[in-house]
Amino acid sequence: MKRRDFIKKAAGGALLAAGTAGAAPAIAARKRFNWKLVTTWPPNFPIFQEGVEKFARDLELMSDRRLRISVYAGGELVPPLQTFDAVSQGTVQMGHGAAYYWAGKVPAAQFFTAVPFGMNAQGMNAWLYDGAGLKLWRDIYRPFNLMPFPMGNTGVQMGGWFRKQINTMDDLKGLKMRIPGLGGKVMAKAGANPVLLPGGEIYTALERGTIDATEWVGPYHDERLGLYRAAKYYYYPGWQEPGPVLELTCNLKAWNELPEDYQIMIETAAAAANAWMLAEFEAKNLRALQELKNKHKVQVLEFPPEVIRALKRLAGEALEDEAKKDQQFRQVYQAYKAFSQSNGAWNDISESAYARALKL
Amino acid sequence: MKRRDFIKKAAGGALLAAGTAGAAPAIAARKRFNWKLVTTWPPNFPIFQEGVEKFARDLELMSDRRLRISVYAGGELVPPLQTFDAVSQGTVQMGHGAAYYWAGKVPAAQFFTAVPFGMNAQGMNAWLYDGAGLKLWRDIYRPFNLMPFPMGNTGVQMGGWFRKQINTMDDLKGLKMRIPGLGGKVMAKAGANPVLLPGGEIYTALERGTIDATEWVGPYHDERLGLYRAAKYYYYPGWQEPGPVLELTCNLKAWNELPEDYQIMIETAAAAANAWMLAEFEAKNLRALQELKNKHKVQVLEFPPEVIRALKRLAGEALEDEAKKDQQFRQVYQAYKAFSQSNGAWNDISESAYARALKL
Repeated sequence: MKRRDFIKKAAGGALLAAGTAGAAPAIAARKRFNWKLVTTWPPNFPIFQEGVEKFARDLELMSDRRLRISVYAGGELVPPLQTFDAVSQGTVQMGHGAAYYWAGKVPAAQFFTAVPFGMNAQGMNAWLYDGAGLKLWRDIYRPFNLMPFPMGNTGVQMGGWFRKQINTMDDLKGLKMRIPGLGGKVMAKAGANPVLLPGGEIYTALERGTIDATEWVGPYHDERLGLYRAAKYYYYPGWQEPGPVLELTCNLKAWNELPEDYQIMIETAAAAANAWMLAEFEAKNLRALQELKNKHKVQVLEFPPEVIRALKRLAGEALEDEAKKDQQFRQVYQAYKAFSQSNGAWNDISESAYARALKL
Repeated sequence: MKRRDFIKKAAGGALLAAGTAGAAPAIAARKRFNWKLVTTWPPNFPIFQEGVEKFARDLELMSDRRLRISVYAGGELVPPLQTFDAVSQGTVQMGHGAAYYWAGKVPAAQFFTAVPFGMNAQGMNAWLYDGAGLKLWRDIYRPFNLMPFPMGNTGVQMGGWFRKQINTMDDLKGLKMRIPGLGGKVMAKAGANPVLLPGGEIYTALERGTIDATEWVGPYHDERLGLYRAAKYYYYPGWQEPGPVLELTCNLKAWNELPEDYQIMIETAAAAANAWMLAEFEAKNLRALQELKNKHKVQVLEFPPEVIRALKRLAGEALEDEAKKDQQFRQVYQAYKAFSQSNGAWNDISESAYARALKL
């Protein structure tokens, strides 16, 4: 007798699982899971780590404490940038980070975080949830025994902190800037020197002049890092990361061992956390921005059109360069580009047109 | 012994619930719920009704078939616009619709769907999930025994279908247009005659010239209604509904009888459906728009700046009029306006600035 038949036959609202024929499957379904989740974020990193902890709490509550996920920040169990390997090898069952951290292993993974001058959060969610994007992502992670889920989005980031004003492309030449990923490749094409630095080292490097500029996240996180004390000019928009998706990864073998109800809980809780984090960034950023301007007298400046136009052209070149080097990157790039172009056409008469109307 | 202690003490991964002291609470937790959910949507209404059915399926799977929600489209169990009362009175446990349908009973409810020239989907989610918005919404629904959740968003809608071009405000004078809610009040101020018509009657009214114009949802839904056969000009942006939130309501007494795990499941599944529906609208609208333009030769036009400016001014007046009539409306309006202004300031240097950069 199947568990669901047994439940159907149980009277009224109560299941009497007292050593009957139905008890054995009931016991199987009651199996407990104690999982570990490692993140790439510093301990207590607001919104990012918070969102992951909320996700774990939701799962624990929904499963009546049978699916417990212990969350570890970057470095607490494995170093931040080894979470991909740890989940892939099954050392832990889950990870949270951003797909572009794994560009060295899987260049195409970068499309599932953010692309310079690419789609915003709403466009990325449309690509991923409507099917084509998420399927592609799962296909390229499968050889690594990983199942990815979108879980979090920062929205459009800021362009970064600069110690001097950027008026022309010449101002970027020779500039040492902390900027990772494809954005860094674009800056290199512009004649800058992109540098990689972990979050904890950025402030000191900028303050001492070891770097001339840095991008980080957005007003809320940048304010906490104190970057306004080390650089005066805060540029927008964040062309390099217009809607970065955060990722949950699950070890495939661990995933396949879960009963269906827990799988749906994970999928659902990840989607809820995805929405929650974007909402938090949106709400918290605006408050922090006002504080940066009013309290810390930061100069908030828009990149000049000439600079944006040039960076956009260089971004196209950088993507083509990468596409030449890696076949999988090329394939995902084509799918991304096709969706992104249509999405741009729709955005232009919906969100963008509405934004224009508000400014009239 | 509490259930959770019992589970903690159960060995390894399995709970042996065989007539021990722990069995009684386990039985309580196994209680089954067979609930009904009524929507305001036509049967098989894409994305809206689909999203609700996905939500119910997720809950059924997550609860291992113990929380079953039977979904009824508008009119199948109660008339579409009586779902508020049906859930309020406990005739059914849940409803899905849009808060502005209940403007007659609760004028302030309109802020929890959409406001002309108000916040977009991302702004609404920030307001609701970050706390202040959702708390207000729950406060105003409590006297009706209702617990609301945001569950779905269409994104920026289209401005509507017109049988003649709109070049100046004079073209709106005397125009009979199907447009509900606050948008209708703005059109009335512009000298038009706003008309209320259910979805099923719109096409015929427009085709026969009983009305001169109509707004509906967006390309995907408007194409299915065949509106392109009855009017030639399709205007954007949808200033009247820039990011309408759909709502799930739950009868408060029914909600309070649920164990915590099921409550979290509902909250989580509603948030996941919220994200899913917006993603679907975004993905499906762009495909439909291309078909409307290329296959059906629809003229897609932007409202002239003069018209947008005038409508924006009239929208401000309409909101002030309503605020004078109802104290609760006034309170929610103030909270909405404060958040919306800050959100606008952030949006202007994030999403809007990025949209401008893409067009350079």
